[in-house]
Amino acid sequence: MTELWNRAKQIIPGGTQLLSKRPDQFLPKGWPTYYEHALGISVWDLVGNEFQDFSSMGIGSCVLGYRDQQVDIAVLKAILAGNMTTLNCPEEVELAEKLLDLHRWADMVRFARTGGEATAIAIRIARAYSGKDKVAFSGYHGWHDWYLSANLGDTKNLDIHLLPGLKPLGVPKCLKGTALPFTNLEQLEAIINDVGAVIMEVVRHDKPDSAYLKAVQDICINNNVVLIYDEITSGFRANVGGYHIKLDINPDLCVFGKGMSNGYPMSAVIGRKEIMEKAQDSFISSTYWTDRIGPVASLATIEKMEQYDVPYHLQNSGEHISLGWKHLSLKHNLDIKVKNSFLPLISFEFKENHQELRTKFIREMLKRGYLANSVVYVSYAHTEKDINRYLDNVDEVFGMIK
Amino acid sequence: MTELWNRAKQIIPGGTQLLSKRPDQFLPKGWPTYYEHALGISVWDLVGNEFQDFSSMGIGSCVLGYRDQQVDIAVLKAILAGNMTTLNCPEEVELAEKLLDLHRWADMVRFARTGGEATAIAIRIARAYSGKDKVAFSGYHGWHDWYLSANLGDTKNLDIHLLPGLKPLGVPKCLKGTALPFTNLEQLEAIINDVGAVIMEVVRHDKPDSAYLKAVQDICINNNVVLIYDEITSGFRANVGGYHIKLDINPDLCVFGKGMSNGYPMSAVIGRKEIMEKAQDSFISSTYWTDRIGPVASLATIEKMEQYDVPYHLQNSGEHISLGWKHLSLKHNLDIKVKNSFLPLISFEFKENHQELRTKFIREMLKRGYLANSVVYVSYAHTEKDINRYLDNVDEVFGMIK
Repeated sequence: MTELWNRAKQIIPGGTQLLSKRPDQFLPKGWPTYYEHALGISVWDLVGNEFQDFSSMGIGSCVLGYRDQQVDIAVLKAILAGNMTTLNCPEEVELAEKLLDLHRWADMVRFARTGGEATAIAIRIARAYSGKDKVAFSGYHGWHDWYLSANLGDTKNLDIHLLPGLKPLGVPKCLKGTALPFTNLEQLEAIINDVGAVIMEVVRHDKPDSAYLKAVQDICINNNVVLIYDEITSGFRANVGGYHIKLDINPDLCVFGKGMSNGYPMSAVIGRKEIMEKAQDSFISSTYWTDRIGPVASLATIEKMEQYDVPYHLQNSGEHISLGWKHLSLKHNLDIKVKNSFLPLISFEFKENHQELRTKFIREMLKRGYLANSVVYVSYAHTEKDINRYLDNVDEVFGMIK
Repeated sequence: MTELWNRAKQIIPGGTQLLSKRPDQFLPKGWPTYYEHALGISVWDLVGNEFQDFSSMGIGSCVLGYRDQQVDIAVLKAILAGNMTTLNCPEEVELAEKLLDLHRWADMVRFARTGGEATAIAIRIARAYSGKDKVAFSGYHGWHDWYLSANLGDTKNLDIHLLPGLKPLGVPKCLKGTALPFTNLEQLEAIINDVGAVIMEVVRHDKPDSAYLKAVQDICINNNVVLIYDEITSGFRANVGGYHIKLDINPDLCVFGKGMSNGYPMSAVIGRKEIMEKAQDSFISSTYWTDRIGPVASLATIEKMEQYDVPYHLQNSGEHISLGWKHLSLKHNLDIKVKNSFLPLISFEFKENHQELRTKFIREMLKRGYLANSVVYVSYAHTEKDINRYLDNVDEVFGMIK
């Protein structure tokens, strides 16, 4: 693995296409880095070692677990019928209808294949509709120019929005000042007159705050500003669809990505008609946005989520794991902070020496056959038995760390 | 089909994710628009009608033909092993090595999943390296802000670059003047001092002009400007790899898209080390760029291309079809202009009333069981027998049109 990774670093800047898949994000020298095959929550590395994934399950993309039969069979059928032709696949219309059925406030849909693209489409549409180029944002929204420009001049603007230190080199300097960060109502009110759109994550690690979201919505309505929810991380986990449905607060546009297609590239923008129609006054078009696998995988994933109440299971498992952490930290008198307000995506933090202890935790769990991290994306494939066995191992490792 | 399309237009702005897949690009009321399955060059619509595809073969993405067994088996195996996990797939390193092996001038590779994304990555890297935001371009390069900004202020700037009338609504207005079109050396020389990068298509419908390309390269070298070839359309057709290999002129960066993965979403940027490494000083990262299908499909496609000398076949077929058009136009005394300088992508134009006669051609060919257009992307699945039968039908239709 180390040899392959060393070759990769020589010929791929960063070694991989995703920051969160670099081994140095976990354990530079011990992390397996590459996989040969996977099933459920198990991943086998290139030399046949099996690991149970209690980390990110494909950076949050495999909500049903690896190689979900129902989704994979739908995808295999699509491939055996033809994944791409000069004509369109009917499934994209079916998926559009399904998304609108789940989100009654929305009227129209566009698809892309990565979350970053879908967010860039939403921003394009919002700018086209509002006529204003400035955007207020909160949270993490990808690699595109519109977002990264926030770090032009001040590379710390994005620091509190999930990933610190994102470098904006190569983003046109004239975009400086077009993406304005906010983390509270005062900040938003101070910039609201300048912006045409507000984009935000509904929830990530912190407790969702309905009053805050409602207040942001009010500010947007009063100032005729397009409100965009980025639900790439939060959607299709705690409920089937955007988390905003659960909170009963609707945006004008909403972006979905990894939650809805169980590891097959797919993303979507949904929104109100008068705004979405502005997409026709711009040029937003790409050949591979028409592949059949994306819509087919999404339809099958959503169907299974509804059929088995996957969100209920994810929340149960998230509770099980996070309460386990709490319990074991008390048992071993370890000072940790558990974040479990959004149960499908939970985390803990060692209150002292977090980075060092986290590295130790990862290393010791790896020895015991776990891809583990202080952040866990729960999947439908995590069974009670899996979780209990995992917690037995956490018990040992917490004991060691103490 | 019409009913489904009407529903689609209500809920998807533009009705589809790609301009070139809208039925009104062909025959608003007669085009089948949707497919159920496909094989070789045959496409079956939703009510079981079979059509032979002598139009774009998935807008140029299915170079080997629909449902190529070799590629599909590789993809099916990847799915049965697991398409996505928290770890990386080794095939992306293998593909990077393969691309570098084919392009000896290049040292590093990044992957994305759509052509537009890959082009935006190349522009980001070139801007990061040069420190200059302005870019000179020639040809069509996708939907992203950096490119569409060329039409800010003057919506005709992009008109001669493949698609006329592209609307830039929603592109930040400050980007006006950052993308500068050129179509000849004088234009390029006039702007070269301002730009950090030149991006161009190597060939599309017109004869590739080595002297011109060489002169552009010289200008770039003399002015220390990054030269980017967009080979999304030209790559992996007339030869295995970028068409520039055949012309023996190397850029600094090169972008590939639809030619190399036979209909499965995949794209790549390759380039010289000193420039590509600048990607590390920017943030270029996306979860779905790590899916396994893309690299696996590409490896299998490239392998088959080499194994069966697919480029030789594509050029033979392109010659067969285009000489057939010429011959039949003479036979029926129809005045058409055939473009076949780049044999894998050929076209003809009626010298008078092109749009009207093209519509008639499409309609009549459709009646005879053909998805036909005045532009043909040739595939490896087009056999001599297919082409002869097609030309028999063109014979009839040219006769009618005359």
